[in-house]
Amino acid sequence: MSTLDHHQILVLLLALATLLGGARILGEIARRLGQPSVLGEILAGVLLGPTVLGWIAPAANEFLFPQIGANALVMHGLGTFAVVLFLLVAGMEVDLSTIVRLRRSAAIIGCLSWLMPFVIGAGLAFSVPVAMGREPDADTLTFTLFFGVAMSISALPVIAKTLMDLNLYRTDLGMMVIATAIFLDLIGWTIFAIVLGLMNPSSANATSIAATIGMALGFAVLMLSLGRWAFHRSLPWVQANTSWPAGVLAYALTIALLAAAATEAIGIHAIFGAFLAGVALGDSPHMREKARRVLEQFVASVFAPLFFASIGLRVNFVTHFDPALIAVVLGVACLGQIIGGSYGARLAGFPPRHALAIGFALNARGAMEIVLATLAMQAGLISERLFVALVVMALVTSMLAGPAMQRILRRRKPSRLIDALSGKMFVTNLRGATAEAVIRELVTTGAKASEKLSADDANRAVLQREHIMPTGLAHGIAIPHGRLRGLDRPIVIVGMARRGVDFRAHDGQASQLIFLVLTPENAAETQLELLADIARTFGERGVSKAALDCQSFTEFVAILNTGSAPQAARVATRVVTAPP
Amino acid sequence: MSTLDHHQILVLLLALATLLGGARILGEIARRLGQPSVLGEILAGVLLGPTVLGWIAPAANEFLFPQIGANALVMHGLGTFAVVLFLLVAGMEVDLSTIVRLRRSAAIIGCLSWLMPFVIGAGLAFSVPVAMGREPDADTLTFTLFFGVAMSISALPVIAKTLMDLNLYRTDLGMMVIATAIFLDLIGWTIFAIVLGLMNPSSANATSIAATIGMALGFAVLMLSLGRWAFHRSLPWVQANTSWPAGVLAYALTIALLAAAATEAIGIHAIFGAFLAGVALGDSPHMREKARRVLEQFVASVFAPLFFASIGLRVNFVTHFDPALIAVVLGVACLGQIIGGSYGARLAGFPPRHALAIGFALNARGAMEIVLATLAMQAGLISERLFVALVVMALVTSMLAGPAMQRILRRRKPSRLIDALSGKMFVTNLRGATAEAVIRELVTTGAKASEKLSADDANRAVLQREHIMPTGLAHGIAIPHGRLRGLDRPIVIVGMARRGVDFRAHDGQASQLIFLVLTPENAAETQLELLADIARTFGERGVSKAALDCQSFTEFVAILNTGSAPQAARVATRVVTAPP
Repeated sequence: MSTLDHHQILVLLLALATLLGGARILGEIARRLGQPSVLGEILAGVLLGPTVLGWIAPAANEFLFPQIGANALVMHGLGTFAVVLFLLVAGMEVDLSTIVRLRRSAAIIGCLSWLMPFVIGAGLAFSVPVAMGREPDADTLTFTLFFGVAMSISALPVIAKTLMDLNLYRTDLGMMVIATAIFLDLIGWTIFAIVLGLMNPSSANATSIAATIGMALGFAVLMLSLGRWAFHRSLPWVQANTSWPAGVLAYALTIALLAAAATEAIGIHAIFGAFLAGVALGDSPHMREKARRVLEQFVASVFAPLFFASIGLRVNFVTHFDPALIAVVLGVACLGQIIGGSYGARLAGFPPRHALAIGFALNARGAMEIVLATLAMQAGLISERLFVALVVMALVTSMLAGPAMQRILRRRKPSRLIDALSGKMFVTNLRGATAEAVIRELVTTGAKASEKLSADDANRAVLQREHIMPTGLAHGIAIPHGRLRGLDRPIVIVGMARRGVDFRAHDGQASQLIFLVLTPENAAETQLELLADIARTFGERGVSKAALDCQSFTEFVAILNTGSAPQAARVATRVVTAPP
Repeated sequence: MSTLDHHQILVLLLALATLLGGARILGEIARRLGQPSVLGEILAGVLLGPTVLGWIAPAANEFLFPQIGANALVMHGLGTFAVVLFLLVAGMEVDLSTIVRLRRSAAIIGCLSWLMPFVIGAGLAFSVPVAMGREPDADTLTFTLFFGVAMSISALPVIAKTLMDLNLYRTDLGMMVIATAIFLDLIGWTIFAIVLGLMNPSSANATSIAATIGMALGFAVLMLSLGRWAFHRSLPWVQANTSWPAGVLAYALTIALLAAAATEAIGIHAIFGAFLAGVALGDSPHMREKARRVLEQFVASVFAPLFFASIGLRVNFVTHFDPALIAVVLGVACLGQIIGGSYGARLAGFPPRHALAIGFALNARGAMEIVLATLAMQAGLISERLFVALVVMALVTSMLAGPAMQRILRRRKPSRLIDALSGKMFVTNLRGATAEAVIRELVTTGAKASEKLSADDANRAVLQREHIMPTGLAHGIAIPHGRLRGLDRPIVIVGMARRGVDFRAHDGQASQLIFLVLTPENAAETQLELLADIARTFGERGVSKAALDCQSFTEFVAILNTGSAPQAARVATRVVTAPP
């Protein structure tokens, strides 16, 4: 029986650890800089792959990521499993009922934002295929179709995330963007399936090509009608009669793997089946949110980073970096999509500013484009030059979407407590016995840490507010606050008074956890958002109790970030000395 | 670059789908029969492997699970990743503070329940190694050590699960069993690491063997001291500063993979490092329960079934089934562990009945034994005969533990609502307008479905109870109930009265969801358990509301089983026709 030997297992473990760890670290850095984490994940692969590590220390690169042999095969197998799971999860985000509900407007916007980049892209690819990066042996028609799809595809997960960040997800504008993105995804993947069918080596003649395409379309229709019906019917049974959530997870994965195998057998790629399975399963009203979340979180935390980091491993991003091609690809993609999307939105009745925002939102290509490009390169359709250009385009358009929408709509992300805190403005042992004394202590701490803050001004503003109406909430929380001229950003100073201070909370309880919220004078909304965030987070009894037990600022921030208290001691705390 | 071809990807997807689907289906059947699901998971592999499918349809078996080539390598790689994750999760269950707290008694019980089976097993293996299943080329001393470990290892996850099922987990007896099992695991895995060190082909002489063992022990000490300290220190930082829960999951996995690589490099198996990483990480008070649960649920739902099913694929369980060897292995394992454990518990002061229960609890070998046996067979230390015997022993001892403890302690599993329901006793449209009329409808439905039930008797008993004190709870729930002579098991009849019926709930709300609970006359506890289960489950507003929306009995049971309502429509429900 073929097995990995000792050395190969060691290499496999080290490769997985480096990829996963590296992808996470750079992904977090990207997130910190306000960029999508997929940017950092790919960068990790670029650093570990031929581009950087292969150039600085070729032996280390060859040791960790051998290009041939058992380890390359295992990584490819794992990558296939990862991308199947990723597309399953992406498919589950598609909610067919949204598109049905908004079908008229979504169809107008969708057609235009699909046609525009598709036609420009396909035209260019057809006229100068080699310059655009067609592989010498590849067929021009197939390449043309692919290039059109690559220009017009959209990235539902990135778009949804961006809309949520800007608090736009549940607005008319947000729903319309989502419906259109679903529309684009469905068209895009269907045409891409045809592209793959055209490339299938076994389909040498027109008849078999037609058969492949027919089977692909037939499979899609079957999955979204009969399959969807059967899954929706059987899901309650599975959730009623199998162990939870293992049963429904295994059910979803088995269906996804079988659907992936079916599309692979037809001659189009496995991901097409996984995506369709996700769509058919995910929009069932019976699918439990909890099961979806376990799948989503594990895939997003482990499989997606592994997959995207491995993208960076494939190609040397420096030698294949072609600025001219990148400029053309970026230009076609952005112009086509933004103009098409905005014009469509105008036709559908959106005002100009909103229409432009919709165009920028749809312009994000994200992970989907990268999956597409990877498959096309693996299939020998596109050159490494074009692959790099498509990856760069995907990243740039995704990075643009958020900031552009923010500017166009004059939106800003809601202020969050976690961003207004600082380790220097955190007092674990307030000594004051009255509200006034405690407020004085807090503003003094704040003034020491920030030059912008005058302790006296702050004290006056907060006391004034406090006298109008006391700020003690239930569960021992108090939120004294005030607005200050001269501040340029909100500041929250946190203090703990373990013995409790009377902030005249309506439940009569003394306050132990005190948040002093100072905001710029003209930022009324910011103040409200911060107060609401504090009340929401610490309204739960367990969370405020855990916060009082914090030994350090880091532990305190961890509670905010995870929204949960550290685990209770898992065993009974009473000490058992003598057995019964 | 080595990649899987089209056919290999197809086979990989089909193999994963069959293994995962088969493992889940048989795992669920096993669970239904009150057996551990690992039994069904292994059985799925036996059915799909050489034992059954390879015998009935060798071509199909060879197609799905080729023994040589790329697919075998990928499956081995995936299996390695799966077992590393499984041991990480198993390690995370170990709570070192429990064993420290109960160290005196746990050490007494642990030493005896470890020594007894170890000494008998090792003695037997040393005297008649070939008969016991040593591979011809293997070293007798190594084999002896291994056999001793195989007899004395314990299975923390199975044991914890059994104790929880019987509501014993948080009792003195339960805690003592857990502490002892941890003790046994730590000793067992350490000796097994030494066994693997002895077998390392590069350590041909005594010096290098000593070096391997020294490094293994050194690594363990390092992980549990310095490593544990560093992880505990850094966890709050990770949870405060990275995206949640992706950051902490990637952190845990990266550490586990690196630790696995380290032990693999030392010359002992990767799982040893993963297990130690789990122990070091898992008992941190900072580790969030939510992150642990995502990891645990995904591993238990996907990776563990894949791994255990693949166990069944390895060997022909029929041709290598040796009844005599199985009897000897089972006898030594059970006698040694039960006598050792019970005697130790007596010495530690437990009364005889409790001591015997402790012996049976520790006797469960579960998944750990199977992991051990798999590694030993892969390493060429034991024959397939002994492998089969050890797997059978692991399954039998695990299946014994629960029922034996139940009998010895005269415990029973608490009654649950889900087990007392039946599709025939489910009325979605009660017509009655008063409590009396509704009760009459429910008992009539019950009497139709069960011969044991007399509608008149039930009606009388329930009304009598109802007159003493009304049974309307908050949120529109009512639980009329009564005890009946002649019933042999509890019956719950569920009815929905959408217009609401007055059961005189203290919140003044009319009851819409009515549970009629009938229990045998002498089963006071059963009644309380059922009432508590109903009140707990439907006390949540969302759950009781969702229950009223159920169209079928299956949907209703799904709510109970998953403890959650179906997902709310994911998009705003207002219909957007005209854009702003």
